[in-house]
Amino acid sequence: MKNTHLQDYSHKRYNILTGEWILVSPHRAKRPWQGQNESVNNEKRPAYDESCYLCAGNTRINGEVNPKYTDVFVFTNDFAALQSDSPSFSVNDGLLVAESETGICKVICFSPDHSKSLAEMSSNEIQKVVFAWQEQYKELGSNPKINYVQIFENKGAVMGCSNPHPHGQIWSQSTLPNEVDKKNTQQLNYYSKNESSLLGAYLAQELEKQERIIYENTGFVVLVPFWAVWPFEAMIVPKKHQSNILEMTDEEALQYAEAIAVLTKAYDKLFKTSFPYSAGIHQSPTDGNDNKHWHWHMSFYPPLLRSATVKKFMVGYEMFGSPQRDITAETAVQRIRELIY
Amino acid sequence: MKNTHLQDYSHKRYNILTGEWILVSPHRAKRPWQGQNESVNNEKRPAYDESCYLCAGNTRINGEVNPKYTDVFVFTNDFAALQSDSPSFSVNDGLLVAESETGICKVICFSPDHSKSLAEMSSNEIQKVVFAWQEQYKELGSNPKINYVQIFENKGAVMGCSNPHPHGQIWSQSTLPNEVDKKNTQQLNYYSKNESSLLGAYLAQELEKQERIIYENTGFVVLVPFWAVWPFEAMIVPKKHQSNILEMTDEEALQYAEAIAVLTKAYDKLFKTSFPYSAGIHQSPTDGNDNKHWHWHMSFYPPLLRSATVKKFMVGYEMFGSPQRDITAETAVQRIRELIY
Ligand SMILES: O=P(O)(O)O[C@H]1O[C@H](CO)[C@@H](O)[C@H](O)[C@H]1O
Ligand SMILES: O=P(O)(O)O[C@H]1O[C@H](CO)[C@@H](O)[C@H](O)[C@H]1O
Repeated sequence: MKNTHLQDYSHKRYNILTGEWILVSPHRAKRPWQGQNESVNNEKRPAYDESCYLCAGNTRINGEVNPKYTDVFVFTNDFAALQSDSPSFSVNDGLLVAESETGICKVICFSPDHSKSLAEMSSNEIQKVVFAWQEQYKELGSNPKINYVQIFENKGAVMGCSNPHPHGQIWSQSTLPNEVDKKNTQQLNYYSKNESSLLGAYLAQELEKQERIIYENTGFVVLVPFWAVWPFEAMIVPKKHQSNILEMTDEEALQYAEAIAVLTKAYDKLFKTSFPYSAGIHQSPTDGNDNKHWHWHMSFYPPLLRSATVKKFMVGYEMFGSPQRDITAETAVQRIRELIY
Repeated sequence: MKNTHLQDYSHKRYNILTGEWILVSPHRAKRPWQGQNESVNNEKRPAYDESCYLCAGNTRINGEVNPKYTDVFVFTNDFAALQSDSPSFSVNDGLLVAESETGICKVICFSPDHSKSLAEMSSNEIQKVVFAWQEQYKELGSNPKINYVQIFENKGAVMGCSNPHPHGQIWSQSTLPNEVDKKNTQQLNYYSKNESSLLGAYLAQELEKQERIIYENTGFVVLVPFWAVWPFEAMIVPKKHQSNILEMTDEEALQYAEAIAVLTKAYDKLFKTSFPYSAGIHQSPTDGNDNKHWHWHMSFYPPLLRSATVKKFMVGYEMFGSPQRDITAETAVQRIRELIY
């Protein structure tokens, strides 16, 4: 088969990490768009906003006062989706099956500067965020009731972010969520057979081909995975086989911060707007098992498709069938890569 | 365990059809919302719009002229995501795995009246849509290259619908998409063990409890499944064990149309707006196998959460972890049910 077929004809690609398929329709990139346009707010925000409940020194809705923090500030979510003290119960009533789920949810402010985003922060500033993620993963993970720690960021109003102050969240819980469970299985299967990491082998292949690489430094590779779903989806992967972010040295944390800085800055240039996305780190569960099969990575799922106002809708077919994309991973890489060098 | 725990504490519920879990956080329904508001357009549309490419007699972008249709009109999608004549190929290059995927995509106009939606059509008018779905399922399914037919509708700009003219889509293809594959497996497992349909057994349980039933008539039940993800998600299920929509008699097609009418009209009343959703029918593959384990059903995934302008965002945790909801299925049923009687 000629590789150009992937750029011309409808096909599906296999996600080695989840075991699921995505539909790619490269020929459809040219279809006209008359649907909903997102609104953009490119107004410059002030460095401090007295009505923002995340700014330093301000009072939150529950009456607590934020400290005058100078870099990163972490607190327990005032409207946590998971409760740590709820009773343990289960429903096993025929085909009605439920289990109590406990956990701890935190909010992490990336900077006291209300006007910034990760894309506008220096690698040294982002490194402090990485340090905070490491501390949280360690602290939450050492709680015997917490077996998985999900670190993520929703950026932009279109991604459900309710406050533009630079911040992310951490939801930690007692069982593995669906997506983590799938990746756990796929990585374990590969590791059991090959005694090496699935993502490590994938990385080696991609580094040789160079077709989907956005950027690399000593410790990290930024690439668009072969099976990417979102138009400009990307993934940051450590070159070393590390199961979780605690295995990073401080120097590697800086290299990781650099990778985040490079990618998010390129994103902002793509459509000349503060680029919205959900980003998240998938890493080894904190369930006390060995988990050597895990190779941690951070993924970025940005919704914009054609411009600052036209996003990809994951609706209809995507909800009932499979995720679907028009522009290919390879085209997306080219677009992002030229904004870096 | 007291059943009220399900209304008070964070827990996860099991989806018997997909084998996946969803996180429910009933206590979080009270959190304030300062995020993005959707725009609503409650303006009454004209019955005919000369700039609409779906109205009868109008010319489409490719130069074809729509007939002066009087009820339902079906045509092949001018920007189909699947091509029927593309070459067959596969990529099996280490961890890069892809397969060509062919198919046929159609658009189905529900009415020549540009101003209407299913919620504003009579059961007799909707029955004609059901007849068209049956014809399409039959015709596409008899094509040896088509092994699955996905019927769906994206309603509303917020659901990626690019034209308000009442219409749905049909994407048919050679392999089973992810969601269908999961439901295939779960239903097959149950059927192999019990020699009866999974959804039939579930239905019997729900009809006895009456806790999640929105509406029923002779042939159909409308309910909020125990494992619903979207705030006001609902499902229409035939009482008889039927694998696909071709097994319906004309009378049953009318009962089905009634169920659609009742649900969509209640939806429109909920937030006094034309209620957006993606709806889709899951039914037996057209792969020539027996598929007796399938029990067809139609699901509605509406995004609105609190009002016509505040939707649920499936972002961050939901993308990286599991789907999450705040109001419970039982609360949602109560809200919808009181709009019917
Ligand atoms: O073909 P349409 O209506 O333009 O497109 C819409 O439905 C498709 C199928 O659910 C989606 O892939 C698109 O993202 C959405 O905008
Ligand atoms: O807690 P927030 O930021 O208000 O909420 C946001 O992120 C959550 C986790 O991804 C989602 O469940 C919400 O739908 C979204 O609006």
